Amino acid sequence: MLKQFSMYVHSLVGIHNMKTTVSPTKIAITEAANKLFYAKGIRAVSVDAIAEKAGLTKKTLYYHFKSKDLLIEAYLQARARPNLDAFKSWFEDANGSLPQRIEAIFSNLEVHASHPKWRGCGFLRTAGELAHLPGHPAIKAASNHKKNVEAWLTDILHDGGCDNPPLLARQVQMLIDGAFTIVLVHHDTAYVRDAGKAAAMLVSANLPSSNH
Amino acid sequence: MLKQFSMYVHSLVGIHNMKTTVSPTKIAITEAANKLFYAKGIRAVSVDAIAEKAGLTKKTLYYHFKSKDLLIEAYLQARARPNLDAFKSWFEDANGSLPQRIEAIFSNLEVHASHPKWRGCGFLRTAGELAHLPGHPAIKAASNHKKNVEAWLTDILHDGGCDNPPLLARQVQMLIDGAFTIVLVHHDTAYVRDAGKAAAMLVSANLPSSNH
Repeated sequence: MLKQFSMYVHSLVGIHNMKTTVSPTKIAITEAANKLFYAKGIRAVSVDAIAEKAGLTKKTLYYHFKSKDLLIEAYLQARARPNLDAFKSWFEDANGSLPQRIEAIFSNLEVHASHPKWRGCGFLRTAGELAHLPGHPAIKAASNHKKNVEAWLTDILHDGGCDNPPLLARQVQMLIDGAFTIVLVHHDTAYVRDAGKAAAMLVSANLPSSNH
Repeated sequence: MLKQFSMYVHSLVGIHNMKTTVSPTKIAITEAANKLFYAKGIRAVSVDAIAEKAGLTKKTLYYHFKSKDLLIEAYLQARARPNLDAFKSWFEDANGSLPQRIEAIFSNLEVHASHPKWRGCGFLRTAGELAHLPGHPAIKAASNHKKNVEAWLTDILHDGGCDNPPLLARQVQMLIDGAFTIVLVHHDTAYVRDAGKAAAMLVSANLPSSNH
């Protein structure tokens, strides 16, 4: 898990600057931030707590991240690719028709939502806490990630022969996001399954009848 | 607006204890909490800030609310009935078929989501901030409210002749909640409209064909 995460952080930063090698310290800070922010929220966790979790002084932390805001951005950037990759693998590993494979994304999500450490979607929870700061760098990171998921959904719905894949992708995305959020209200993962049935029905309704 | 709010707080507390008259002070505190918590989130706002907004000392505030947790609960309880009443009026005032009237809930929500002070759903944002505290009294208040919306949706879908109204109500609810949350990510209210189209399609698909 740590190895996968480190490789991911390397590859992520590599996108911005191919010549930069990410220091193990920066990786340790990002991982500590990811664990604590996801567990309790971005305002509930102090920079002190992250430095302590990473086994570093606050001065060292601030050498790598100039502000808490940049740390929140890094937290979401670190979650983006693993999240999208999970969705992709859930879809690719599923058998059956296109609606059934879209529904499989939700079935897998339901399993994950039952884990005691699951706390919904880190991107949505962060956007909720920063609702009054739409220009925050973490909001941009969240928006980029959700747009990437939406683009991937658009591609697979297009490849599957659906009508209006961009609209359908946004609707499936909102069912995923609605399920993510309502489970934190009721703490009942059956909602994820119900959202999956809705997504499957919408996809079916957007397929030419010969493909049903 | 203030008068409506006061009447609402009176009626709410009346449910629990018919003989209690809510003091104007308690109403002022609840209203200050509602404004500040909704604007910035529950952790970003201190009890001091709420006391100041209400024009009271912190001691007076604590006389009426023993803890910040109870203030957060009161904030959500105060939003519950006005929120449900808004949904009901949007549906009742709409013309057309059942799918069109369900879609009208989203059209109205889209207008509200364009307001500069709109910050999504206070219930979902609070549940996101308290994701690690599922037993918090505010989570119970949020769950009660969302269940009341779900029950109302179930009734109108049942009265409209839909198949499986309880499932369909949950699916429509998750499209509303998904729209609430994704707009805070992209700050683009067009998503609310797309969610409304999905809800209308799901309702159509669950109506006997003679009613289409």
